Amino acid sequence: MEFVTGVKKKETYEINDILDREITGNVSMNGAIHTIRDMGEFAFIVLRNRQGLVQCVYEEGITDFSVKDLKEGMTVLAEGMIHKEERAPQGFELRLVKMAVLSEPQKDTMMPLPISKWKLKTSLETKLAYRPVSLRNIRERAIFKLQEGIVRGFRDFLYSEDFTEIRTPKIVAGNAEGGANVFKLEYFGKKAFLAQSPQFYKQTMVGVYDRVFEAAPVFRAEKHNTTRHLNEYTSLDFEMGYIKGFEDIMDMEASMLSYTFSFLQEKYAKELNLLNVTLPDVSKIPAVRFDEAKVLVSEKYDRKIKNPYDLEPEEEVLIGRYFKEEFGSDFVFVTHYPSKKRPFYAMDDPTDSKFTLSFDMLFRGMEITTGGQRIHDYDQQVNKMIARGMDPEDFTNFLMIHKHGMPPHGGLGIGLERLTMKLLDEQNVRETTLFPRDVSRLEP
Amino acid sequence: MEFVTGVKKKETYEINDILDREITGNVSMNGAIHTIRDMGEFAFIVLRNRQGLVQCVYEEGITDFSVKDLKEGMTVLAEGMIHKEERAPQGFELRLVKMAVLSEPQKDTMMPLPISKWKLKTSLETKLAYRPVSLRNIRERAIFKLQEGIVRGFRDFLYSEDFTEIRTPKIVAGNAEGGANVFKLEYFGKKAFLAQSPQFYKQTMVGVYDRVFEAAPVFRAEKHNTTRHLNEYTSLDFEMGYIKGFEDIMDMEASMLSYTFSFLQEKYAKELNLLNVTLPDVSKIPAVRFDEAKVLVSEKYDRKIKNPYDLEPEEEVLIGRYFKEEFGSDFVFVTHYPSKKRPFYAMDDPTDSKFTLSFDMLFRGMEITTGGQRIHDYDQQVNKMIARGMDPEDFTNFLMIHKHGMPPHGGLGIGLERLTMKLLDEQNVRETTLFPRDVSRLEP
Repeated sequence: MEFVTGVKKKETYEINDILDREITGNVSMNGAIHTIRDMGEFAFIVLRNRQGLVQCVYEEGITDFSVKDLKEGMTVLAEGMIHKEERAPQGFELRLVKMAVLSEPQKDTMMPLPISKWKLKTSLETKLAYRPVSLRNIRERAIFKLQEGIVRGFRDFLYSEDFTEIRTPKIVAGNAEGGANVFKLEYFGKKAFLAQSPQFYKQTMVGVYDRVFEAAPVFRAEKHNTTRHLNEYTSLDFEMGYIKGFEDIMDMEASMLSYTFSFLQEKYAKELNLLNVTLPDVSKIPAVRFDEAKVLVSEKYDRKIKNPYDLEPEEEVLIGRYFKEEFGSDFVFVTHYPSKKRPFYAMDDPTDSKFTLSFDMLFRGMEITTGGQRIHDYDQQVNKMIARGMDPEDFTNFLMIHKHGMPPHGGLGIGLERLTMKLLDEQNVRETTLFPRDVSRLEP
Repeated sequence: MEFVTGVKKKETYEINDILDREITGNVSMNGAIHTIRDMGEFAFIVLRNRQGLVQCVYEEGITDFSVKDLKEGMTVLAEGMIHKEERAPQGFELRLVKMAVLSEPQKDTMMPLPISKWKLKTSLETKLAYRPVSLRNIRERAIFKLQEGIVRGFRDFLYSEDFTEIRTPKIVAGNAEGGANVFKLEYFGKKAFLAQSPQFYKQTMVGVYDRVFEAAPVFRAEKHNTTRHLNEYTSLDFEMGYIKGFEDIMDMEASMLSYTFSFLQEKYAKELNLLNVTLPDVSKIPAVRFDEAKVLVSEKYDRKIKNPYDLEPEEEVLIGRYFKEEFGSDFVFVTHYPSKKRPFYAMDDPTDSKFTLSFDMLFRGMEITTGGQRIHDYDQQVNKMIARGMDPEDFTNFLMIHKHGMPPHGGLGIGLERLTMKLLDEQNVRETTLFPRDVSRLEP
């Protein structure tokens, strides 16, 4: 009988092994051939692997293979001597002795994009059409490595604050956020929807664990193609009980961002450098009321307030600009959104029920977070539903939590791709979405 | 202008604060009233919060409130003196002085289930119908806390092995796993599907990061209601390049499980105790060929082999039993599954193309993992598609990765809820699914 006992000691080296352990001498490394620069009697062959690029030097007569047999896109096991070389990407190069070809691209095919270029200077359309290949570009892939770091920071911080991670269903019977932007599907003869948010479930789970979070896909059937909307995106949600007010949620978000940015600085410095990102300061984020923000912006930028109960994207941009100019902050919390712009589960401000105990967070003029305190009282929730012409009977499962007792609670949702987009100063959210879904894009 | 600067110092205490920092004296704690045992002149009031149960003692005349005003399901801020008490759940009790009621359940409502009982002795149907409330039971919620730990272990291990976490789309154009069990949805006038697995995308991302993983929902439109099928579940997927064979993937899984179980022992000891779980040994997992396993079981348990190319659930159970009896192992890898039972992307065994370089892992007689090596060569993949009557034109985006070069690679998917189920010796996967989705269940 054979037994599986776990990962064996590797026979190959990674870039970090060589740098951290100051390995010298003869080593083997895996990689894909990123570029070949054939200079006649010698050649530079750059390998791409998960930790970066490795410059290999081929010299005719030294090796057991010919550079003519190599091709970009092949994957190989390269063997050679490590040699310090400051001009090489990692400060060393591999002087090749052997090369075993592990796999080959299709014969007579050319790369559709020059992925070995530093920055892909193709249109977003082209990059997305060839996403499986364009992501092999070093800069492109760094974007999603950094995005991994954001999610890790979010989770690690919340674990440390005693939150529990939950996994809520994406096929649902109800329509938490209201409106028409919900995908319908056939579910064994019943009507079902794709979850627009984990709202009902995260509130439910506050009744179980007091503090919960989820980082998972949500689905919005938005019909408009904009630079900031996606039909499927990752929502970083948390929800917490025993709050004194929605300010507790803003405090938690500020601390989370502060932790996450430190975490990125520590663990993702390579990607931050590659992408030329300077992390913003979050130690002191201004908070302004919705109605006051509109006035401030209207006065400073000489702009008429068209609708006192709504915020146009241009106003968001100007609010961002205002707080950058006046307070040097890339972030601003806009609080007390009008009731009619918020869902039925939002708690109204007891001092003025036209407004809610809620907030958005703007980052460089774009909304990246929506949050607030929720209604915890059964009668209050039922009455608000009725006032909106909703039938509480349709929400029996959700109302079960209010019926049997819920702590005062609230939470928020952060759009991961938008946060990444603004952090990288990109102009289109598709740049920071691995495989974007929009009205005209379902593949790759 | 007001500023948000992060989480303030708490005024309340958690159970761990009191135990770890040996807090004494007067403290305030938040919690939901789990039970009230009124003994006349005094009463035990048990609070439930995220870290467990706290026994509070009420004595008439001492407090500024009456126990008669309290009700199960209320949430409160309790203030009192800490007093060592070995018989109390945490080794201490809170001798109450004050109690502020933060929220109340609906008037004149009774709990639909006795959630304060140690073990809910209701049917699974009832538990699921009242899931938002039944999860408030201490034992029920421990299940999903432990499940959190499994996912954390999976992720942390893979980070340490230099895997990158990815987030792939759940609305897709193609049908990776084939078959009829795919949910269809209307996508702006186009046909779309819910992803049965992240298969195409994780292979694609191996071409980018060499090693990737994802822990995310997958969707299967299974029409049969069994104790082990769900229509939406969490798949723990990883995929890795530069493998020498599918054995590398089994090694990685064995090491991952070993890490995860140690992690649970260290960080989730409370839940393991609560649920009475003994973690199985994974240091030495037997591996047996599919065809040999069938023979072994047929001989030992005197059972006719009906179909040499398929494994019935009963056979899985017997294989599990065989390796428990003969080798003391709760786990067994069954390798070399027949080609016709595996998808088109599976690599056939070059020594016998009726079988594949793939495996399942059984845990206590149930399949919890499917994995294997994938085809990396373009022509080989196209030819296998054609041999199966598939049109390669339908897979242009997927085939882009083979066309432009892929390392030898493979990976696996683990059913999180099934793994949890077997770990807990539960009989139905719904027991270990937060909000299960099946043919007849779309709510809560």
